[in-house]
Amino acid sequence: MERVQLKEDLSFSRIVHGLWRLNEWEYTPEERLELIEFCLEQGITTFDHADIYGSYTCEGLFGKALSLKPELREQMELVTKCGIVLPSKQRPEHKSHHYNTTARHIIQSVEQSLKNLHTDYLDALLIHRPDPFMDPNEVADAFHQLKAAGKVRYFGVSNFKHHQFTMLESYLEEELITNQVEISPYQLENIEDGTLNFSLEKRLPTMGWSPLAGGKMFTSGDEKAIRLRSTLTKVAEELGAADLSEVIYAWILQHPARIMPIVGSGKQSRIRHAVKALNHSLTHDQWFEILHSSMGHEVP
Amino acid sequence: MERVQLKEDLSFSRIVHGLWRLNEWEYTPEERLELIEFCLEQGITTFDHADIYGSYTCEGLFGKALSLKPELREQMELVTKCGIVLPSKQRPEHKSHHYNTTARHIIQSVEQSLKNLHTDYLDALLIHRPDPFMDPNEVADAFHQLKAAGKVRYFGVSNFKHHQFTMLESYLEEELITNQVEISPYQLENIEDGTLNFSLEKRLPTMGWSPLAGGKMFTSGDEKAIRLRSTLTKVAEELGAADLSEVIYAWILQHPARIMPIVGSGKQSRIRHAVKALNHSLTHDQWFEILHSSMGHEVP
Amino acid sequence: MERVQLKEDLSFSRIVHGLWRLNEWEYTPEERLELIEFCLEQGITTFDHADIYGSYTCEGLFGKALSLKPELREQMELVTKCGIVLPSKQRPEHKSHHYNTTARHIIQSVEQSLKNLHTDYLDALLIHRPDPFMDPNEVADAFHQLKAAGKVRYFGVSNFKHHQFTMLESYLEEELITNQVEISPYQLENIEDGTLNFSLEKRLPTMGWSPLAGGKMFTSGDEKAIRLRSTLTKVAEELGAADLSEVIYAWILQHPARIMPIVGSGKQSRIRHAVKALNHSLTHDQWFEILHSSMGHEVP
Repeated sequence: MERVQLKEDLSFSRIVHGLWRLNEWEYTPEERLELIEFCLEQGITTFDHADIYGSYTCEGLFGKALSLKPELREQMELVTKCGIVLPSKQRPEHKSHHYNTTARHIIQSVEQSLKNLHTDYLDALLIHRPDPFMDPNEVADAFHQLKAAGKVRYFGVSNFKHHQFTMLESYLEEELITNQVEISPYQLENIEDGTLNFSLEKRLPTMGWSPLAGGKMFTSGDEKAIRLRSTLTKVAEELGAADLSEVIYAWILQHPARIMPIVGSGKQSRIRHAVKALNHSLTHDQWFEILHSSMGHEVP
Repeated sequence: MERVQLKEDLSFSRIVHGLWRLNEWEYTPEERLELIEFCLEQGITTFDHADIYGSYTCEGLFGKALSLKPELREQMELVTKCGIVLPSKQRPEHKSHHYNTTARHIIQSVEQSLKNLHTDYLDALLIHRPDPFMDPNEVADAFHQLKAAGKVRYFGVSNFKHHQFTMLESYLEEELITNQVEISPYQLENIEDGTLNFSLEKRLPTMGWSPLAGGKMFTSGDEKAIRLRSTLTKVAEELGAADLSEVIYAWILQHPARIMPIVGSGKQSRIRHAVKALNHSLTHDQWFEILHSSMGHEVP
Repeated sequence: MERVQLKEDLSFSRIVHGLWRLNEWEYTPEERLELIEFCLEQGITTFDHADIYGSYTCEGLFGKALSLKPELREQMELVTKCGIVLPSKQRPEHKSHHYNTTARHIIQSVEQSLKNLHTDYLDALLIHRPDPFMDPNEVADAFHQLKAAGKVRYFGVSNFKHHQFTMLESYLEEELITNQVEISPYQLENIEDGTLNFSLEKRLPTMGWSPLAGGKMFTSGDEKAIRLRSTLTKVAEELGAADLSEVIYAWILQHPARIMPIVGSGKQSRIRHAVKALNHSLTHDQWFEILHSSMGHEVP
C-alpha cells in the first residue's frame, strides 16, 4: 500500500485504521488480534487511538490483543491523543467535561496510554482538540519531557485551525507532524475554511476522521444525504464500484492534500472497500458532482 | 492616465477595460476596433478577458477586431483567465460545470486564448477561481511551461482568499502579480474579510471586478441599493459629478489598496465617467457615508 | 502588583484603570486625584484613555486632576487612542461619525491629548479601531513624526483582527506593542476567532476592555447572562470570593495570554475586587464551567 512520509524515519499507511468503536464490537482478544493482522496484511500499518475512546476502554482492548503477539508492535505505527477530560466510570475523579493540556495531564495521559496499549513508545501523540485555555508553554514542556524519555517519537494535533496550529507550533522545539481533521463528502468544513489549504502550504500530512460521516450518506433522510446518496450511487455504477463507501474513500483520496482516511470498521469486508478505493479514479466531472451534491449548489 | 506597476517591466492602466459582455453589444469588428482605440486614447491600455466570457466567444470577437490593426497589440496589456469549465455549444465535450486546474487544461486553454486573441503572448494569465480540487504542483508545472515557451509573461489569480493565495504561491517559481476580486460600494466582502488588507500587506496590486455591481445601485429595489442610491446622489451633487457611476468609481479608486476597477461597458460615454472619477476627491465624511449606506449601520 | 513587560523600558500593571466613564462620576478634581492615588497605591499604574471618551472630555478631567500633583506623572503609564471621529459639542467641526487615520488627524489628536492630560508625552498611543479606509503609509508617517518629537514612546492598536494587525505592522518602523480587545466571559469573540491565539503566537501583550461586559452578567435578563450569573455565583461560593466580579476578573487573568483587564470603575471597593482576583485560582472544571455557560453548550 502507498505510504505517506511524515518524517525521515516515520511513515503512515495511506489508509489508517481507527479504533474509536473497538469496545462496541464485542470481540474476544483473539478476534481483535485477527483484525489487527488482517489490517497489517492489507498494508494498513497505522492504528489511530485516543485516551477517551470507548470511555477510556479502547486502548486497553487493543493492548490486550497486541500482548498476545507483541512482535507485531514493530510492524505498526501507534497514534493516540489526549487533552479531553470526560466524566466516566473509569475515571471517577473526573467531575466535568473539559480540556486539560497542562504538562502534568499530558504526561499522565501518555503514561496510561502506554500501559493500556502494551507498548513502551508511541509513534505519534496528538492534542485532541484546540483548547481555548491552552498554555502553549505547558504543551511544549510535556512534549520535551516525553520525547527525552523516549515515550513519544513525534507530536501532532487534531481539529486545529490554521491560527491554533501556528500558535502552538511557535512554542515547540520540533514541527508538528500532522493535523487530524474531519473530512468527508458530507462534511466540507475543512475544505471550505482553508484548513486543507494550510496543510498543502505547510506540506503537512493530514489524517481524515469520520470519512463516512458516521454512515449519514447511506441512511440519513436529510436533503444533503439524499442528494449525496443519489450522486454516489450514480458514480459507483460508472466506476463499477462494489459499494458507495468505495466512491467516498476515492473522493477523499484523490484530494491533492493526500489525506489519510481513518477507517473505523471492525469488519474485514468494509475495510477492503477502503483499500479498493485506492484503485478507483474519479473524473473531474465526478469529483465536482459529488461536491455539488454536498453543497446543494454548483461552484460559482 | 495613472499607471500601476506590477513588475519592473509590466504596468497596467489604473482603469482597466473588461470584455465579459463583448458578445452582447453586437458590434461589427470595425466598431469593436473603434472601442479599443477609444480606450487607448483615454489611456486605458489594459484589457481583461477570460476564456469563458460570452460562453467562450468574447476573446475571439476581440481578436478579430485586433487583427484589423495588429500593431495595436504592443500598445496594450492583455489579461485572460482559465480554470472554469462550462457546458457550452462552443465546447460540446464539456459535460458539467466544474473547475479544472490541471497543467493539461491550463495549457490547452492558454493556447486557445492566444489563437482567439490573435496574439502570441499574454501579459498575464489568472486562475479564475480558487479550486477546491486544485493540485498546486499542476498549476506550477503549467506556469513553468507557459513562461518558458514565452506564451505568458506573468501569472495571477482571481477571487482568491488569503489562504488560497499563499498556498498556491508557495508552489510557484515566481510571485503572483495580482488578485482580481469583486469590489464595489454594494459588495464589501473583500474589504470586510481581510482580502484587501492582505493585498496591502503583500504590496499586491488588486484588480476590481464588477465595480458597478451589475447596475444594482442604479436600479435595484432592495434596501441596500435604495440607501446607496440616495447617498450616491447626494455625494454626486456635492462633487458636481455628472453621473452616479463617477462617485462609485471614485469611492473605489480612493481606497488605499489602489484598486484597478474594471469597466465593462461598450459605450464611450460610460467609460468616460470612469476616467473622470480619477479627478474626483471624496472627503472622509463622504467615503464613510457611502460605506455606512452599504452596511446599513455606522462603523462602531 | 504583577507587571507585564511590553518593551525593555516599558511595563504596564497587570490591572489597568480605564477612564471611559470619568465624566459620569461627577467628581471634583480633588476626588479624581484621590482615585488616581488610590490606584497607584494598589499598584495600578497604567491608565487607559481615548480622545473620544466622554465625548472628548475625559482626558481633560484626568489632566486637571493630575495637574494638582504633577509629580505623579512619572509614577504612571498613560495610554490613549485616536482614529474615531465623533460629532460632539466639543468638536462642532465634525459633521459625521467616521474614522480618520491620516497622519494629519493622528498628530492633531495626539497634540490635543497631551494638552488635555497635562503631560508632554504618552507612553502608548493606540489606533482605536481598524479603519477600512486606512492608508498604512499615513499611519507610519504619523508614528514616525510623533516618536521623533518625543511625544509618544510606543504604538499599538485596539480591536484589530490578525490580518489588520500584520498589515499595518508591515508598514511601520517598529513593532506594535499591544492589541486592546474586548474580552469577558460574556464576550468570547476574541477567544473564538483566533485573536488571542495570534497574540500568543506574536508574544503580544493584550489589554482587555469591558471585562465586566458593561454589567450584563450581573443584571441582564438574557439567557446567556442568566446562565453565567448562576455559574459565577456557584464558583464565587467555592472560591470564597466576595463578589462575582472577582470571579470574572480571575477567569480573564488566568487565560494564558496574560490579558491585562481594564477596570473602569470610579469606586475604590470595585477596583479592590479586581486586585483581589489576582489571588484567586480557578480549577479547570471551574474555568470551563464558566466558558460553557457563556457558549450555551459544552466544548466538543
